[in-house]
Amino acid sequence: MGTIRREGPDCTGNPQRLDVRDRPSTLEAEWVTGFVDGEGCFHVGISVHAGMRMRRQVLPEFTVVQHERDVQLLHALRAFFGCGVVRSNHGDRAAYRVRRRSDLLRTIVPFFLAHPLQSQKRGDFDLFRRVLEMMEQDVHLTESGVEKVRALAARMNRGRSR
Amino acid sequence: MGTIRREGPDCTGNPQRLDVRDRPSTLEAEWVTGFVDGEGCFHVGISVHAGMRMRRQVLPEFTVVQHERDVQLLHALRAFFGCGVVRSNHGDRAAYRVRRRSDLLRTIVPFFLAHPLQSQKRGDFDLFRRVLEMMEQDVHLTESGVEKVRALAARMNRGRSR
Repeated sequence: MGTIRREGPDCTGNPQRLDVRDRPSTLEAEWVTGFVDGEGCFHVGISVHAGMRMRRQVLPEFTVVQHERDVQLLHALRAFFGCGVVRSNHGDRAAYRVRRRSDLLRTIVPFFLAHPLQSQKRGDFDLFRRVLEMMEQDVHLTESGVEKVRALAARMNRGRSR
Repeated sequence: MGTIRREGPDCTGNPQRLDVRDRPSTLEAEWVTGFVDGEGCFHVGISVHAGMRMRRQVLPEFTVVQHERDVQLLHALRAFFGCGVVRSNHGDRAAYRVRRRSDLLRTIVPFFLAHPLQSQKRGDFDLFRRVLEMMEQDVHLTESGVEKVRALAARMNRGRSR
């Protein structure tokens, strides 16, 4: 049993306990940033969706994928941030995933502003944050707005975002 | 320019400065552990070596491999630990690597004892440390000792070390 300490500007509540096998698993904010620098992904998907006014849906998501042997770490991340879900991914992989826009805006983004990524992934995060801010202003609900989002998304996850 | 803060039980010396482009790059101990949980590797190689008494050489090494776009992080790790080298790896990859046994024993192992890994990689680290301790006692210089090392090494890097 280990104590998960929740930190970050938008994480509130008491420390939570998780069953994490035989080792202590006290996640610290800087550990989380380091782990996400290695394993995290900020992604903006744009899908065709017949039911939407624009027929295209903008889907920002933050994910961390691990081999299922380390699924307890994904649960620890979920407890740390106090949002998101842990799901099976392809084959023997599991994923921690945050898609709800309010969670991304109020928890994930403020955390990585307070505890900045050190890798080039920080460029992806900056673009991700800009897309979320545009969505807050409903920019993505116009044709030109979706194109702006698409242009930002195209610069992400290629290591050339900065 | 960013300040690299060196921590850990066996890291001495003043803070060092590195050119890390336009972002601060103050590595903290917990960030380093988180990043290594994601990207690091503890490995023990056993190679045939005609010049050795046992004709087999035991080669423990700690490595972190990244795409070359994040090579500045590898240099920051080298500065943080105060040992090891940064080298080109395959294709567009670069590696931070520590092979010198005294550096592994006096810097790398004490650091990860003080700042424990949270992933299953911790099992690899425990085996890695046991191999280094056996080498300190010259166990690897006997035929049966090399077999013991080989048995430990075979359990590493497969995610089943615990």
